[in-house]
Amino acid sequence: MLQLNELSLNIPETTKPRVVIIGGGFGGVNVAKNLPGKEFQIVMFDRQNYHGFWPLLYQVATAGLEPDAIAEPLRKLFDKDYEDFHFRQVKVTSINPESKTVCTLVGELPYDFLIISTGTKSNYFGNKQIKEFSFPLKQIPDALNLRSQLLQSFEQANMIKDPAVRQSLLNFVIVGGGPTGVELAGALAEMRRHVLPSDYPGMDFSKMNIYLVEGMDRVLPPMSAESSETTRKYLEDVGIVVKLNTLVESYDGKTVTFKGGEQIQTQTLIWAAGVSGAQIKGLADTSSERGRYLVNTFNQVNGYTDIFAIGDIAAMKTEKWPNGHPGVAQPAIQQGKHLAKNLKRLVHRETLVPFEYFDKGSLAIIGRNRAVADLPKNLHLTGFIAWIAWLFVHIYYLIGFRNKLVVLANWVYKFFTYENGTRLIIRPFLRKEDLAGQEFVRKQTDLD
Amino acid sequence: MLQLNELSLNIPETTKPRVVIIGGGFGGVNVAKNLPGKEFQIVMFDRQNYHGFWPLLYQVATAGLEPDAIAEPLRKLFDKDYEDFHFRQVKVTSINPESKTVCTLVGELPYDFLIISTGTKSNYFGNKQIKEFSFPLKQIPDALNLRSQLLQSFEQANMIKDPAVRQSLLNFVIVGGGPTGVELAGALAEMRRHVLPSDYPGMDFSKMNIYLVEGMDRVLPPMSAESSETTRKYLEDVGIVVKLNTLVESYDGKTVTFKGGEQIQTQTLIWAAGVSGAQIKGLADTSSERGRYLVNTFNQVNGYTDIFAIGDIAAMKTEKWPNGHPGVAQPAIQQGKHLAKNLKRLVHRETLVPFEYFDKGSLAIIGRNRAVADLPKNLHLTGFIAWIAWLFVHIYYLIGFRNKLVVLANWVYKFFTYENGTRLIIRPFLRKEDLAGQEFVRKQTDLD
Repeated sequence: MLQLNELSLNIPETTKPRVVIIGGGFGGVNVAKNLPGKEFQIVMFDRQNYHGFWPLLYQVATAGLEPDAIAEPLRKLFDKDYEDFHFRQVKVTSINPESKTVCTLVGELPYDFLIISTGTKSNYFGNKQIKEFSFPLKQIPDALNLRSQLLQSFEQANMIKDPAVRQSLLNFVIVGGGPTGVELAGALAEMRRHVLPSDYPGMDFSKMNIYLVEGMDRVLPPMSAESSETTRKYLEDVGIVVKLNTLVESYDGKTVTFKGGEQIQTQTLIWAAGVSGAQIKGLADTSSERGRYLVNTFNQVNGYTDIFAIGDIAAMKTEKWPNGHPGVAQPAIQQGKHLAKNLKRLVHRETLVPFEYFDKGSLAIIGRNRAVADLPKNLHLTGFIAWIAWLFVHIYYLIGFRNKLVVLANWVYKFFTYENGTRLIIRPFLRKEDLAGQEFVRKQTDLD
Repeated sequence: MLQLNELSLNIPETTKPRVVIIGGGFGGVNVAKNLPGKEFQIVMFDRQNYHGFWPLLYQVATAGLEPDAIAEPLRKLFDKDYEDFHFRQVKVTSINPESKTVCTLVGELPYDFLIISTGTKSNYFGNKQIKEFSFPLKQIPDALNLRSQLLQSFEQANMIKDPAVRQSLLNFVIVGGGPTGVELAGALAEMRRHVLPSDYPGMDFSKMNIYLVEGMDRVLPPMSAESSETTRKYLEDVGIVVKLNTLVESYDGKTVTFKGGEQIQTQTLIWAAGVSGAQIKGLADTSSERGRYLVNTFNQVNGYTDIFAIGDIAAMKTEKWPNGHPGVAQPAIQQGKHLAKNLKRLVHRETLVPFEYFDKGSLAIIGRNRAVADLPKNLHLTGFIAWIAWLFVHIYYLIGFRNKLVVLANWVYKFFTYENGTRLIIRPFLRKEDLAGQEFVRKQTDLD
C-alpha cells in the first residue's frame, strides 16, 4: 500500500569510498564477500532478496527441489559480521556517470566505484508472440510457473475430450540446446520414466513427447565436440527427440512453426534459446556490444575507470577468449574475487593486476549415470564418473551449509526411491487468463 | 489456454458403487485410504493437487518451512497401488441430490455415495473491507503471501521516510487467539529475537510490536482454563501484547479500529479470527446450521442416507459434544476411517456402527521450550515436556516419509542455529497493486 515517494534509500553518509554493487548473483556476492568493510562502504541492490544457484533452477521446475534449496537470502549471506554492508531490495533504473550516481525506483545514490553484475535476461530476439506464450526459465517464479504448467498439463490431459488437444498437452518443446535445455530435457525424461506412470496410472506415457530444438549443428555448443556427441546420444537413449539445425519461426500458444515449415502442436514451449545482458541505461554507446559491457582485463567498462562489469554482463575479450568468457558461474566468481583485490589495490594506489580466467572445465547432466565433463588438458569424462563429478561439484559450490544438506538429502532420497517429492501446483486450477483473460503468474516475472 | 468446455471428467463407467469424495484433507484422505478398490470405485475432487498438513502452515508463513515440507501430492498418496481410485483437480460447483450427481466446472458425475470433506474457509463475518486488506492463513498461497509481506515490511521499514509509517510497518496485528493465532504470534516473536536482528543490523527491533487480539476472555478457548492461562503468560514472556475481550470494528489497510474506539496503525493485519464451513450449493436448508452440515452419528447429512459429511464441515452433536467436535485434525481422521468401515457395512447390508470420538488431547506451541498440552484424564503439561510432546506428535502425524525427514531436519537445524532458512520473497519488490492498482497474489487465493 506504500507509494514509491514514501521511500528513500536511507544509506548512511560515509567518508570511506562507497562501492555500489548492482546484482547479488555469483559476481556481486563474491566481490562483496571479499571487500573489507573497514576500508569501504558496500551497498548492494537487487530486485530479489536472495542469491540463487541458477545451475539447479531446472530442478525446481521439474519438482525435484523447492526454491529454498537453491536460494539463500542475501541478508543471511551478509549478516551482522559484515561491517558497513547495506542491502536494499530495489530496482536500479539508470546510471549517471557524470554525477557518479545510481538511480533507483526510490531515489539516487552517489558512488565512488560502481560494479555492474546484473547477469542476463531471456532474449526472444524481438519476437513478442514467443515472449507472450512461451515459458522462460531464468528466475524462481519462472521455475514454479513452469512446474505448475507441467503438472497441470497431465491433470488436463486426463480430462480433455479431443485426442489432438490431448497430444498437444503431452508434447513438450524445449527450444535451446545449451546446458539449461539439455538438463531440463533430461529431468523431464526421468519424470516420464520413473515418476509420472505411478501418479497417472491410466495414462499412456509413450505418447508423451519431449523435443529438444537447437539452431546449431550440435547440442551444448560451448563444450567439446566429443561431449556434444555423447550428450546427443544420451538424450536419444532416454527418448528425447533432438532436432538440430532447427530454428523457431513462431509460436501462438498452440502451434510452434519452425523455419522450413514443420509444425508441432504443443501447449508448452520452454524458451531456453538465448539470453542477453541485463543492461542498465546511462552508459555511453561505446561501452557495450551486443548487450554486454566491454571491459578491459581489470573489468573496467570501456571509457570508464570507476565503473566495472563482471560475470555474464561483461565481455572481456582476450587472446584466449576472443568472444569473452563462457556465461557460467566460474568466470563471475573468479572476476568478483579478483575485482575485490583490485579495488583494494586502487585505494592503496598500487598497480592493478589483470584478470586471468582459470578454466576448471564444464559439466552437464542428462540423467542418472548419464553426464558429460570437459576437464582441463583435453580430458573428457562420461557416464557414471561424470555424473558423480557433477554431483560433487554442484554440492560443493552451493552456497550455504543448509542448502547443501537439503539438496543432498533430496538427491539421496531420489536416488533410492526414484521419487520427486515436490509435485505441488501452487496456483489455481486453471490459469487465470482462461477465466478473466489475464495471466498473473507470468506477469509477475515480466515486471523487469 | 484451454477452455472449460474442452474438458470432461473422464471417469470410467463402473458396476461397483461409486464413492465421490469432495476434498483431499484429513477426512477425505482417510476415508479413501480405507476403502477397498475391489468393492468401490473412488473418485476424489480437490481444487489443489495436494494434501496439506495445515497445523504447520504458520511455519511456512514465518519462513521456517517450505511448502513441500507440509504438503504431499494427492497423486503420490494414492499411487498405482490404489485400485480404481481417480483424482481430478477441479472445483465442485454444486450437488444435485435428486439426480444423485455432483456438478464440477468441467461436467457432472453420478454418485452412489457422496462424502463432503471440504473443511472450512476464512470467515470475515461479512466485513468486505477486512477481507480485502487483511492477510488470511488458510492455504499455501496465503502462507507464501504472508511470508513475503512480513519480509517486505522489514525491507521497507529500512527505507521509509516517515517514522509513523515505519512504526506501522513494524506493528503486526494478529486477530484471533485460537491455535493459528497463538502459534503464529509465537513464531514471529522467535523471529524477532533470534533471526531478524542479524539480518537487519541497523534496525531497532524493540520497536517491532506483535499484537494478539482475541474477542473472548482467554486465548485458546477450546483448551482448558489452565492451559489458556499458561499460554497467555508464555506469550507475554516473549513480548507479545495480548488483548483479550477485544473485537475488530474495521481495517482499511493502514489503521485497525477496535470496538470501543482504540486504534493501531499497521500495514499487516493477519486474520485468524474465524472460519466457516466450505459448503457446496444444492442440499436442503435443513441440512446445515451456521455453515456446517448437521450429521447423525453415522456422518449422514440430515435428510439424506447417501450423503455424508466428515471433519470440520460436519456438526455431529452428541451428549458429550453438544456443539460438535473440535475443528482439528483428529475428528476428521477418525471420522474418515470410521466412515470407510460403515460404507463397507452398508454395501454388505450390515448394521452401521455409530462414531465415537477418541479425544487424544490437544497441544499448542508458543516457542522453544514453551508449549501447553491438555491430555485425557484432566492431565496438563507445560514447558519443555509439552514442547517435546508437540514435536513428536506433529512429526508422527505428518503424512509421508519424506516430509517427516525434511521437517525434522529443519527443526533440528533451527534448534542448534536459531536460523530460519527460507526467507525468500518470491514476488516482485512492490506488490503490484502499488504500480497498477491490482494485487495478483491475493487474487490467486480468492478464486474460490
